[in-house]
Amino acid sequence: MKAVLVIADGMADRPIKELNWKTPLEAARKPSLNHIAKTGICGIMDPISPGVPPGSDTATLSLLGYDALKVYSGRGAFEATGSGVDVLPDDVAFRCNFATVDDNFVVLDRRAGRISNEDASKLAERLQKIKLKKPSNVQFLFRNTIQHRAVLVIRGPKLSTAVGDSDPEKAGEKVSDIKPLDESPEARLTAQVLKELMQKLHEVLMQHPINKDRVKRGLPPANIILCRGAGMFPKIKSLSQIYNIRAVCIGATPLIRGVCKTAGMKLIDVKGATGTPQTDFIAKAKATVKALNANDFVLLHVKATDVASHDGNVEQKIEMIEKIDSMLSYMLDNINLDETYLAVTADHTTSSVTGGHEGDPVPIAITGPYVRRDDVEEYGERTCANGGLNRIRGMDLMPILMNLIGKTKKFGA
Amino acid sequence: MKAVLVIADGMADRPIKELNWKTPLEAARKPSLNHIAKTGICGIMDPISPGVPPGSDTATLSLLGYDALKVYSGRGAFEATGSGVDVLPDDVAFRCNFATVDDNFVVLDRRAGRISNEDASKLAERLQKIKLKKPSNVQFLFRNTIQHRAVLVIRGPKLSTAVGDSDPEKAGEKVSDIKPLDESPEARLTAQVLKELMQKLHEVLMQHPINKDRVKRGLPPANIILCRGAGMFPKIKSLSQIYNIRAVCIGATPLIRGVCKTAGMKLIDVKGATGTPQTDFIAKAKATVKALNANDFVLLHVKATDVASHDGNVEQKIEMIEKIDSMLSYMLDNINLDETYLAVTADHTTSSVTGGHEGDPVPIAITGPYVRRDDVEEYGERTCANGGLNRIRGMDLMPILMNLIGKTKKFGA
Repeated sequence: MKAVLVIADGMADRPIKELNWKTPLEAARKPSLNHIAKTGICGIMDPISPGVPPGSDTATLSLLGYDALKVYSGRGAFEATGSGVDVLPDDVAFRCNFATVDDNFVVLDRRAGRISNEDASKLAERLQKIKLKKPSNVQFLFRNTIQHRAVLVIRGPKLSTAVGDSDPEKAGEKVSDIKPLDESPEARLTAQVLKELMQKLHEVLMQHPINKDRVKRGLPPANIILCRGAGMFPKIKSLSQIYNIRAVCIGATPLIRGVCKTAGMKLIDVKGATGTPQTDFIAKAKATVKALNANDFVLLHVKATDVASHDGNVEQKIEMIEKIDSMLSYMLDNINLDETYLAVTADHTTSSVTGGHEGDPVPIAITGPYVRRDDVEEYGERTCANGGLNRIRGMDLMPILMNLIGKTKKFGA
Repeated sequence: MKAVLVIADGMADRPIKELNWKTPLEAARKPSLNHIAKTGICGIMDPISPGVPPGSDTATLSLLGYDALKVYSGRGAFEATGSGVDVLPDDVAFRCNFATVDDNFVVLDRRAGRISNEDASKLAERLQKIKLKKPSNVQFLFRNTIQHRAVLVIRGPKLSTAVGDSDPEKAGEKVSDIKPLDESPEARLTAQVLKELMQKLHEVLMQHPINKDRVKRGLPPANIILCRGAGMFPKIKSLSQIYNIRAVCIGATPLIRGVCKTAGMKLIDVKGATGTPQTDFIAKAKATVKALNANDFVLLHVKATDVASHDGNVEQKIEMIEKIDSMLSYMLDNINLDETYLAVTADHTTSSVTGGHEGDPVPIAITGPYVRRDDVEEYGERTCANGGLNRIRGMDLMPILMNLIGKTKKFGA
């Protein structure tokens, strides 16, 4: 027995006036999602707990069976790991942006005009050569990832994630002063190192030929690095240690890849999978079918639904749901459902109206040979609420799936 | 007001192909169960938490309102207590089997040909006379219970449950070496004492006339004791301390009797109650009705449904459910339901397909004067999921029942 978990990022939504008070999921044409609901057991699920809007990192941790409230230790380490940077257990990692500030450190553009990978790579290469003065046992790694995005890892024996962001998260605001968030010497040291480093990065960027050239070309210079989300590798057991399974992740988003890698899952790269609305949905479905040959558990993550919701683009969100439905259609046709359980859910609700993650529960449907099939005929936020699973927590899902495929241990005699 | 809780061991199941994808409970003729569902409030219940397959001991602890994840400390102490052996707070107890090994300690028969009570008693009497050498403050108690089953209690001031089993749980495998499971001196001492004792028991059994006689008669000699499930008495308050009630248990299974005794419940012996499919269901119903006169809470446990499921015997499971239904019919006719709440559930799902305990929720129905009666018309895994209790945890049930009979205290002002 094997299991596939499809997570459509931010697919769940709230009713929208323009859709005659339907949600995008309710308004979409989705024969495959409905088939899964109809042949499966349905329910609603609070990724963390009712009313709590989860990040995609905490939600995915939770859907993988971990108690995110206990083990989550910041976004940075997941971003770095997911971007291919090796993060060690005591490293503190940050998500960074190349950005543009004026002389008073007011942010003009948080993405430095969505700087090209080429420019960002050259700048990052130079930044990595900077030497930190003290303490001598602290080092850093700086890597650009996609466009303006980058990761920073600070490595040393006595560091802490209790440091504030420098990223004010809004253009027009001043860069935040980096401060320790508690009284520990570790937090003070980390803040001091980070502050010094940010100053040096800024000095080097101000002088760099690439930026002089950008100004000439009328582009905003990438003259500062903004950092946020200090994070350490959470101390968790891998899925293979917990359930004795071979588990893989198919997904393009660095944050999700980082969470999955942290859970000991193998990452599978799929050509054409981009983490954007232009991703190749069928390529992902094919990769999933193939991965089932040699693995017990496949997590398939699709980012596109979340992107559309953050942009408040209801039409695009419906379109993305319909593409996910086609992706599922391929999977239903090519997976042996006599020996495979297929679960479909979202990691959180993203409201197309507020444009943000919200705390409403998400729909969940599980089909497969021995589920207690219920009366739900349609996949949606409200129809699934009438299903046989009733209301569960995100961290309950993995034990349920692992129990169905015979990978849980009895508690007691 | 009084309450009866009927626990049908492993009664819940998954849909089965031969039953046209019904569960045994759904396929059974069960007018009394349906009447309870129809006149009561229904729901589904996770004995421990979603997806976690419980043992009958952890599940029963949970259904009695205890947090099994916190208080469970192994099966052994329950088995011993339930078999009538007095277990003291610091004792370490084991479930044992009389078994047959060859000269290389490979297990030939884990039950020594299901040795008779008579032979086992004589052997146990001799084994109890063995003297442990050191340390001088450690003693042991060895008692045979039914056929090949026995319990061992090790008593001393500095013992631990962190010791491995000697029982490999499978014929054809070698007897496991007893090892401490952590680094504590207590675990080392317990493992050392147990190892020495097991060796002595083996030596005495090898020489015993009963075994020589068994070989002559062509029977497998009971030449070794296999032990497993090291357990200590959990440190819990009794039900009478928590709710100020008189509580009794009607059930034949030593493990369940042990849990109930540990919770401070009185054990009632019923003639003809055997813990097997041949048990006298009506005798148990009569004993329950009688016990309500002098007590506030009666737990009635039936083992037969679990036995049938472990054997994959779907027909027998249905038959057992129908017998439970007759038992409930007698109770409905003879209990004053104006002042008694009657709850019926299972301690866990046992799949007739996998033959093991599974992590699916169990149905629960509570009837009685003031429950919020819902629309459920039939007792079953799926119908109850539509009930007014929605989905609760095992440890929630006892507070619900105790509140209905007016035995809970207000939390706050």
